[in-house]
Amino acid sequence: MIELVGFDGDDTLWHSEGHFRRAAAEFDRILGRYVDVRDAAVRTRLNAVQRANLALLGYGAMSMTLSMVETAIELSDGRIDARDIQRVVDLGKAILRHPVELLPGIRDAVDAVAARHRIILVTKGDLLHQERKVAACGLAHLFQRIEIVSEKDETSYARVLGEFGIAPDAFVMVGNSMRSDVEPVVALGGWAIHMPYHVTWEHELEHGVPPRHPRVRRVQAASGIADAVARCG
Amino acid sequence: MIELVGFDGDDTLWHSEGHFRRAAAEFDRILGRYVDVRDAAVRTRLNAVQRANLALLGYGAMSMTLSMVETAIELSDGRIDARDIQRVVDLGKAILRHPVELLPGIRDAVDAVAARHRIILVTKGDLLHQERKVAACGLAHLFQRIEIVSEKDETSYARVLGEFGIAPDAFVMVGNSMRSDVEPVVALGGWAIHMPYHVTWEHELEHGVPPRHPRVRRVQAASGIADAVARCG
Repeated sequence: MIELVGFDGDDTLWHSEGHFRRAAAEFDRILGRYVDVRDAAVRTRLNAVQRANLALLGYGAMSMTLSMVETAIELSDGRIDARDIQRVVDLGKAILRHPVELLPGIRDAVDAVAARHRIILVTKGDLLHQERKVAACGLAHLFQRIEIVSEKDETSYARVLGEFGIAPDAFVMVGNSMRSDVEPVVALGGWAIHMPYHVTWEHELEHGVPPRHPRVRRVQAASGIADAVARCG
Repeated sequence: MIELVGFDGDDTLWHSEGHFRRAAAEFDRILGRYVDVRDAAVRTRLNAVQRANLALLGYGAMSMTLSMVETAIELSDGRIDARDIQRVVDLGKAILRHPVELLPGIRDAVDAVAARHRIILVTKGDLLHQERKVAACGLAHLFQRIEIVSEKDETSYARVLGEFGIAPDAFVMVGNSMRSDVEPVVALGGWAIHMPYHVTWEHELEHGVPPRHPRVRRVQAASGIADAVARCG
């Protein structure tokens, strides 16, 4: 019997990854004035800087921006013009300022689930940016709790379920990410509804709860979420 | 009758403001190679950039770092060398990497309060940075809940108290900041213990619940906290 339903934010309720991808493409154009960004050695250094920063800075637009600034200085061997660094900073600020756009049908889907279950939002990234998106999405009043965490792993989900006094098998998580929304919840003994997001689809294929895991439902659009929740528990 | 005691993190449990002050002083030295940082017009522009960013980026070391980078580019009219921008970024990363140092006597104080009351931590700033400080401080297991928020205002405190089902007059908040720890809680009808931190003392004087407000206790050191809690409610 399902008692609590969790929703992911980025790329489940609202569009997100596309904004980051566009900023990354524009960053490549700026950096391309100084170095060949298609060069494999350049990509390797770039990924190394970003991976090292992820552990210190975490996820989100501010972290990505600082990481791009550092990468640009490092890969241009300090030759990058300060005005170009400002352009890089502006890419990050544009992500933070972007209006919230809900995915098609998500409002009705969240309404339908909230009519039958308690629901919470579990999201990661910049704290203030996530709070602003939650406030702007027009759905915040439906959620019993907004959990913004630095990592959506088993520890985070177990803590939240503990605070609600909910057994894992009475919880379903709805989201686009195998790594953040599906796998940790299933590992705890919970249920998951995987709704792939077009931009992340290829990346997500790398991860792998078996596609037909008995506690995972898969939907192609928000209109399928409420039915999928009814098929859990 | 007090049922729940909240503790602030930065400059209440562990040192923080000093790290930011030292980074700001070092930033002035770097920027001083390009512009007279003591010039009043320069300070005005610097403050304007930082204030505008605060609304978008929020509090914390990452926000401060991005703001310093932008300020340096803007105030140097784009003349700043990329290597100096990297030095600015490194100032922010040094704050994020700084080991947690508890204030004197705070471990005993938190232990003593936790022995008699449920306690929570309410802190603001970079999500991942705050989580890391909580994990490193060695006190996390004593707190029923770690609340990391973007703004410690009446709305945030009211939400937390609502989630715990606690009336404001059964709650005491312990912290160094009049604006974030004392005023919003007292405005809701709660209690507060103000423990001034030496570095912020002057700034805090600007704010002002009357110093002898009947629901505010003031202590000069952590050793006074447990007694002050007993004198609330």
